[in-house]
Amino acid sequence: MADPDIVDQVLKAIRQVVGPAPVALHEPRFAGNEWAYLKECLDSTFVSSVGKFVDRFEADLAAYTGAKHVVAVVNGTAALHIALKLAGVGAGDEVLIPALTFVATANAVAYCGATCHFVDSEERTLGVNPQKLREHLRATTEQRNGLCVNRATGRVIRGLVPMHTFGHPVDLDALLALARDYNLVLVEDAAESLGSAYHGRHTGTFGLMGTLSFNGNKTITTGGGGAILTDDPELARTAKHLTTTAKLSHRWAFAHDQIGYNYRMPNLNAALGCAQLEALPGFLESKRRLFERYQAAFSHIQGASIVREPDGCHSNYWLHALRLAPERADQQEAILAATNEAGLMTRPVWNLMNTLSPYRSCPAMALDSAESLAARLINLPSSAHLAERAA
Amino acid sequence: MADPDIVDQVLKAIRQVVGPAPVALHEPRFAGNEWAYLKECLDSTFVSSVGKFVDRFEADLAAYTGAKHVVAVVNGTAALHIALKLAGVGAGDEVLIPALTFVATANAVAYCGATCHFVDSEERTLGVNPQKLREHLRATTEQRNGLCVNRATGRVIRGLVPMHTFGHPVDLDALLALARDYNLVLVEDAAESLGSAYHGRHTGTFGLMGTLSFNGNKTITTGGGGAILTDDPELARTAKHLTTTAKLSHRWAFAHDQIGYNYRMPNLNAALGCAQLEALPGFLESKRRLFERYQAAFSHIQGASIVREPDGCHSNYWLHALRLAPERADQQEAILAATNEAGLMTRPVWNLMNTLSPYRSCPAMALDSAESLAARLINLPSSAHLAERAA
Repeated sequence: MADPDIVDQVLKAIRQVVGPAPVALHEPRFAGNEWAYLKECLDSTFVSSVGKFVDRFEADLAAYTGAKHVVAVVNGTAALHIALKLAGVGAGDEVLIPALTFVATANAVAYCGATCHFVDSEERTLGVNPQKLREHLRATTEQRNGLCVNRATGRVIRGLVPMHTFGHPVDLDALLALARDYNLVLVEDAAESLGSAYHGRHTGTFGLMGTLSFNGNKTITTGGGGAILTDDPELARTAKHLTTTAKLSHRWAFAHDQIGYNYRMPNLNAALGCAQLEALPGFLESKRRLFERYQAAFSHIQGASIVREPDGCHSNYWLHALRLAPERADQQEAILAATNEAGLMTRPVWNLMNTLSPYRSCPAMALDSAESLAARLINLPSSAHLAERAA
Repeated sequence: MADPDIVDQVLKAIRQVVGPAPVALHEPRFAGNEWAYLKECLDSTFVSSVGKFVDRFEADLAAYTGAKHVVAVVNGTAALHIALKLAGVGAGDEVLIPALTFVATANAVAYCGATCHFVDSEERTLGVNPQKLREHLRATTEQRNGLCVNRATGRVIRGLVPMHTFGHPVDLDALLALARDYNLVLVEDAAESLGSAYHGRHTGTFGLMGTLSFNGNKTITTGGGGAILTDDPELARTAKHLTTTAKLSHRWAFAHDQIGYNYRMPNLNAALGCAQLEALPGFLESKRRLFERYQAAFSHIQGASIVREPDGCHSNYWLHALRLAPERADQQEAILAATNEAGLMTRPVWNLMNTLSPYRSCPAMALDSAESLAARLINLPSSAHLAERAA
């Protein structure tokens, strides 16, 4: 039953931070060179599959993230699909992914013909819980010829795809050790964490590959877009080849040596990305300021707190989140209703992957924390420009 | 061995039509509302997965093509992938496609887990030869429970995907009759034929579904983009659902009822498309004028002629093509070399699908005409603005 007290307190605190309604959950901002670069792109007539903005966006992303190689693609889902393929994920494999993630993580596994195997999250990072996962693998898998085999299904568990929820880095040291011990390829779904660092190093650069998203709701946007990060030149070369229809280079002939994909990022979208990336440091500062304001506004509300970055990490604070205490989980729906009715857009975290009809029969470990978090998290308006609007 | 005589004649004729080098094969033109709409899109901040330009582009395409429903997607490959899925193509099926096509047609079949079955083309349309295909199906298939079964492989041949080569419509009446007689779903790959009509009706609107492409080299471009055309409201609804991650509508919850795709066209790209579509009638006139000039310039060259639209059809003349007489096929390579070295970009048609390593073992009928055409066709510079540049 709705408790008017906490619902009102939350409404008031959000209003205090973000100002008058309506306020969207996350809006992009185009206050830099976006128009100049779009116009330059249009004037060049190179709006499509090749062009200098694609090359520049890849180089700028490499410089920013520290990844040795970056391949720009059409969206984050495509990036993860290709990264998993290149990590060797194929038909009949299983891939460990958090139950608490956006559906793209699961879909990318499915596109490879593989099966998702859902993993629990931890309160601290909102991402994969390394201790629980280690215990699960110890109890339910065995090593056969250097491969991790799920004893219950007989399938090879090929990889582990942690996702940095709302931009907060997962416990990468523990997960990398786990992947090493269990012979799993680690690919980071860094769709939400451009600008987030783990112990000073950018997320997405720890696994064999990492993937980014530049969808309209992300910290920076290219309209639609994504990228694959890797330090391995051969993987980068193959990723570029596979995402550009696997066409062999020739002066005029059209030959393709693999079943490739039309996953390249158009130059038009890359032009927007170049300008947005220039603005990223400013966005990150604003989002951090917004975090501080939310934290102050909610500091006196019993049973509700603002999610903060894990120790040793620097979060991009992509989506701010309110976390209800377990005993106030019953207020989640009332808070969502009241805030959205007041024109302050909020939303719960995604329905857990193991509850979606296409993934209901996939293997899963006990998901106690993910289930608890899903019942208690509420994303708050998070646009960078709200920090400027706030008092 | 190169015959300097015909090579020189061809070079001279191309130069006469298109003027001084360098001349690209196909360049887009942005001389209308492209800037205005891109700016409006940017100012609205809706550059991504929803926005009024996506809705408008879909409505404008429906009005232009006469299709009852249009779903804009991220590219032509994605459009065909989803159209085939919705046509019921699945793992273990075969799909009839021309050997003479761009690799996207074959890849879309492969993404469905199905196998390509390659079909010969005819000289007249450059597309699927209905008579030869009928003879092939009569001799090698049988009907079982209303399904067309390949006797050699035991697999169901689910569909037929004719492609309108360089914009020239295939013999749709004969192919529709064939599809009816053999219980095949017909999906039109109209990637190259926006603006082309068969007996007065727009290509892509005859099959259960049709698909368009707006890649940078096409008659109009959105940077990257495609569309699905259909008269069936339920197919259109499902296509929209599947291409937008199969998310169920809800005020805030994120539930997905199928393995969906991130195939939506960003609003930014649709903004470009709206302006380009306004300019399409002018582009088509220019391209037709360019055809007439090529035809006049080549009228006196022995053994080489310009491909013209089939009788009863109106072609968009997307890519102009020189067709060598069979006895001059040995001059194709020399002409390609000489023209490209002179800065006049030409190219052969795509390597036939049955010759590409990923598709080499697919079933195929005798491909005599496709093989002959592949050895004799040469695409010529085809940008609409060349007609204005020409004398």
